[in-house]
Amino acid sequence: MGVGGQTLDEYLESLAAATPTPGGGSVAALCGALSASLTRMVANLAVGKEGYESVQADLKELERSANALQARLLVLMEEDVKAYDSVIAAMRLPKKTEPDRAARVRAMQKAYEWATTVPLDTMHACSEALGLALTAALKGNRNAITDAGVAALVAEAGLRAASLNVRINLAALKDNALRGRVEEQLGKILREADRVGHEVIALVEG
Amino acid sequence: MGVGGQTLDEYLESLAAATPTPGGGSVAALCGALSASLTRMVANLAVGKEGYESVQADLKELERSANALQARLLVLMEEDVKAYDSVIAAMRLPKKTEPDRAARVRAMQKAYEWATTVPLDTMHACSEALGLALTAALKGNRNAITDAGVAALVAEAGLRAASLNVRINLAALKDNALRGRVEEQLGKILREADRVGHEVIALVEG
Repeated sequence: MGVGGQTLDEYLESLAAATPTPGGGSVAALCGALSASLTRMVANLAVGKEGYESVQADLKELERSANALQARLLVLMEEDVKAYDSVIAAMRLPKKTEPDRAARVRAMQKAYEWATTVPLDTMHACSEALGLALTAALKGNRNAITDAGVAALVAEAGLRAASLNVRINLAALKDNALRGRVEEQLGKILREADRVGHEVIALVEG
Repeated sequence: MGVGGQTLDEYLESLAAATPTPGGGSVAALCGALSASLTRMVANLAVGKEGYESVQADLKELERSANALQARLLVLMEEDVKAYDSVIAAMRLPKKTEPDRAARVRAMQKAYEWATTVPLDTMHACSEALGLALTAALKGNRNAITDAGVAALVAEAGLRAASLNVRINLAALKDNALRGRVEEQLGKILREADRVGHEVIALVEG
């Protein structure tokens, strides 16, 4: 059963349990999914409504994109668990002999690389959710503009939450070139999110 | 069935539907619940562990408080829906005669008051979740400190999301004294959250 089939109570209890997964990386992706879902509501509340005739095609496209993004973020919730579990599994590999130790280091590097790229994907997806929240604030039902604001706030929280996981796993990577590329992307996404987040909140408060 | 018995898929689809509830207010309270749940994990991962002997009682108290808070936030998710639905119901009351109109205005004021106090309660609860995330960062399992950081980020997002709902419903209230009191509390909670949020993130990045 996928994570989407879990009840909220079950999911919250699996978070709270004394096991590292699911944890913050899964919550980060869930924030993005909640954002996409709220954006769909703001779009759906204007579909077929008077005063929104000129944006009907945009609203349908917004619903479609947000729906696909929501599904992708649910997959990322599960990927995050798998990637982190692979780090734990690699840590537990035997380290008695020199070849054992070398194999363990390679496995750990591979696992940390995975555990870095999954939250980086979550950051990209949350950044997309933030952009869709902006479209919702601009074109969706104006009575639901605070919901577009909430969509922006949770997308930004998901993005920042994922960035904490990128950073901590990145620190374990020995590949300097990869580290440099990821750090550059991370900084760029955070700056852009800050800009778009402020734009949405200004629209909501205006 | 309570909201906690809904699957994540069901909840996300109910958000996305072309009905105003559940919406941003429900997501705000859920963010607080996710935060409380992550705090419990960070505490639970240090319960009975070497190196945490001196904080065992604190960790158990942290788990207890966060668990109670998580339950309260699930109730607030449902209260938010009921309060907003009562605004819609009041709006639909008859307004043909003068007594009808007066009764409708009174019902709407009562409903808006409820729709203001519920997200204000959510803000208080998220503020409490943020405080517990700080305790988790200080006393919980140090390998899970990014999870305490995520707990802080989602609590803060929930708090800011709830503040958007407080503000929009507050604007409809005619009781100036009540409006003044709520505005004062709102500003205070937001400033305090900003301070505590920065403190947690500084600990995580340190």
